[in-house]
Amino acid sequence: MKLTEQRVCEFIDILASDAPAPGGGSAAALMAAQGASLVGMVAALTAGKPKYVEHDELARRIMSEAETLRLKLAGAIDRDTEAFNGVSAVFAMPKSSDDEKAARKAAMQAALKTATSVPLEVMELALKSLELTVQAVGKTNTNAASDLGVAALSLLAGVKGAWLNVLINLGGVTDEGFVANHKSRGLEIVDKAERLSAQIYNEIISTL
Amino acid sequence: MKLTEQRVCEFIDILASDAPAPGGGSAAALMAAQGASLVGMVAALTAGKPKYVEHDELARRIMSEAETLRLKLAGAIDRDTEAFNGVSAVFAMPKSSDDEKAARKAAMQAALKTATSVPLEVMELALKSLELTVQAVGKTNTNAASDLGVAALSLLAGVKGAWLNVLINLGGVTDEGFVANHKSRGLEIVDKAERLSAQIYNEIISTL
Repeated sequence: MKLTEQRVCEFIDILASDAPAPGGGSAAALMAAQGASLVGMVAALTAGKPKYVEHDELARRIMSEAETLRLKLAGAIDRDTEAFNGVSAVFAMPKSSDDEKAARKAAMQAALKTATSVPLEVMELALKSLELTVQAVGKTNTNAASDLGVAALSLLAGVKGAWLNVLINLGGVTDEGFVANHKSRGLEIVDKAERLSAQIYNEIISTL
Repeated sequence: MKLTEQRVCEFIDILASDAPAPGGGSAAALMAAQGASLVGMVAALTAGKPKYVEHDELARRIMSEAETLRLKLAGAIDRDTEAFNGVSAVFAMPKSSDDEKAARKAAMQAALKTATSVPLEVMELALKSLELTVQAVGKTNTNAASDLGVAALSLLAGVKGAWLNVLINLGGVTDEGFVANHKSRGLEIVDKAERLSAQIYNEIISTL
């Protein structure tokens, strides 16, 4: 059964179990999805309200973009665990002959690349969600200000949690170009996300 | 229906909807619960393994304590939304006569105190979970090192997310002693949690 089809209490229980998956990668995707949800909620609590008519168009655009990001991030909860299982499956491949060894090695490289690319995609989506959250600050329902702050925290935890999962899988990848590209893009995202999240959190907390 | 009984995909959808609850408070509790789950998972992946026999007792203690914290934090996902709904319910109370006004005012103070105390409890539980995570670093299954890092990130996001919810509700509380106590304890927890989470994250990332 898909992780996102589990009840919340079951998901938390499975996460805590000694099954190696789901692990931190799926947890990071869920945190990021929660962040996108909260930005969407704050926009939804703003759109159509006379008090915020000036920002109505912005609120509707944020709602729509946040929904797209949320659905993609929710999908990544399962895709990260599938990618992890893909790596695990390679360990069961035979390695008696040279041909088998070569096939196993190639399969491992492909599986590790997927297990690196899924969390990097979570980082990209969470960064986009943070860029959306920044646009909402000061222009959305002030009753939900704290929710924008929680969005910023969830999205940063999602970015950095996914980054740890990029790094742990990247360690086994032998394609130097792939490693260099993923490392530099990942570092760039972490840096941007830290700045944006801190900016949002500090702006919000100064109003509470 | 309880939030924790919803499927994960439904929870994310409800969070994104224009229903004001669940909001950031329940999201913060879920992030903290995920953190406690991940610490428990890493301990479970360590206990009983010959390679980590030296730390077996520690791993079993962490598993047990993480389970208690996870169950309490999971319970707080629903309790935070119930506390929020308690505040909303007061707005519907009559306020025609002086007696009605006084009853409404007293009910609002009680509801706001509960809506402050639930996220403060989440902060306490998440801090305890971080203290447990620190104990696990360097003494648990190294294959799951990144999961300990994600735990530290989730728990910090849970602490700071809950803190925003303490602050937004504390703004309406008139009992000065209550306000002072909750503010000073909250600030102390945020400070400790930031230090512990950064320490864990930096130690983990240096090994990846």
